[in-house]
Amino acid sequence: MKNQAQKEKAVIILSGGLDSTTLLYDVIAHGLEPYALSINYGQRHKKELIMAAKTCRELDIPHKIVELQCLNELLQGSSLTTSKIDTPHGKYDEESMKATVVPNRNMIMLSIAAGYAISIKATMLFYGAHAGDHTIYPDCRPEFVSKLAATIRIADWHEVTLFAPYMKKSKGDIVVRGLELKVPFKNTWSCYEGGEKPCGKCGACNERAEAFEYAIAEDPSLE
Amino acid sequence: MKNQAQKEKAVIILSGGLDSTTLLYDVIAHGLEPYALSINYGQRHKKELIMAAKTCRELDIPHKIVELQCLNELLQGSSLTTSKIDTPHGKYDEESMKATVVPNRNMIMLSIAAGYAISIKATMLFYGAHAGDHTIYPDCRPEFVSKLAATIRIADWHEVTLFAPYMKKSKGDIVVRGLELKVPFKNTWSCYEGGEKPCGKCGACNERAEAFEYAIAEDPSLE
Repeated sequence: MKNQAQKEKAVIILSGGLDSTTLLYDVIAHGLEPYALSINYGQRHKKELIMAAKTCRELDIPHKIVELQCLNELLQGSSLTTSKIDTPHGKYDEESMKATVVPNRNMIMLSIAAGYAISIKATMLFYGAHAGDHTIYPDCRPEFVSKLAATIRIADWHEVTLFAPYMKKSKGDIVVRGLELKVPFKNTWSCYEGGEKPCGKCGACNERAEAFEYAIAEDPSLE
Repeated sequence: MKNQAQKEKAVIILSGGLDSTTLLYDVIAHGLEPYALSINYGQRHKKELIMAAKTCRELDIPHKIVELQCLNELLQGSSLTTSKIDTPHGKYDEESMKATVVPNRNMIMLSIAAGYAISIKATMLFYGAHAGDHTIYPDCRPEFVSKLAATIRIADWHEVTLFAPYMKKSKGDIVVRGLELKVPFKNTWSCYEGGEKPCGKCGACNERAEAFEYAIAEDPSLE
């Protein structure tokens, strides 16, 4: 039996949103040793990263932030990284949300995270994709994640397994799980705008409000 | 029939070495419109990047360099990005070459290149992996490239196909192809050391020398 000192190392992509923060608490609850990784790709909602750092500080776990703003100019055309295109307001729908996609963002993030996992000899890589993402982002679909997992598995002599345990959960289910795990949701950020407080209007704010409503809970970030 | 103005766009990973430079000439010979992409991951052999830029300037084609030095600290432990570990000298062999591997480097590069292809609506992505790389680098093996291609294909609504046409060629075969295409090999760089001239001792220099010997040709970079 493994003792405390031999906990399995797990890299987790931590955006600072409620999905990945809940996943981090879940990883810890499963007795793993988490190494959080955040990516700064120049998103307008930098508040996410501040929240991610705060969460890791409070949990006293290692946290790395990779600066990838250099990719903005290359991966042009998303409203998340440029102020030239307006963030779509109102509910998520396929057409308006396509404007928020950074091309191949998840594959880039997960490739870097897999490299990090290989370098620290972690055997697991966790990623908080959830059911609500599927139809909107091609690189959140189960078939994409499964093909990516197969690729990561053979990328190195050291085998890393990609897990996306929330793939079949809705955001509402994740809030429910977070409440069980006592996740401090006040330390998570969803809004796509760069304001001090959530705007309450963008797709991410709407989706978050619906998730808390589903869980019959108050969102502490609105207090 | 497509006219000149409607040439198919192709992104090509251009390291500045002889494999990818020959591939670039091959892509042009096939009537495609190349968009070269180089990655500066802080390798000691920066000369490669200078050569890549020179090649693109001479061919008058678009060239982007992505600065990824920020990954060095994260993807620690490779002699290509740190001076703490000595570059292995002599011939390539599995054990000594493991020290030159940047964890998951190719997957990271290709994910970014796929994102670039998506953003400029290129349908093809070219990558110069060759037969000699297989046993040494896990992420150069045919099974890795084929799984990665399957992942990239479904990463976005815009479909990008990954091609690695030199997968079954030796470096010697590539030199032969390069001679047919009149590739100016003096504008390519292989040496893993950061010197002004190739060191002639490292694994990359040895492999290059053998490839020119196979092709019964002189290496103009040694003049």
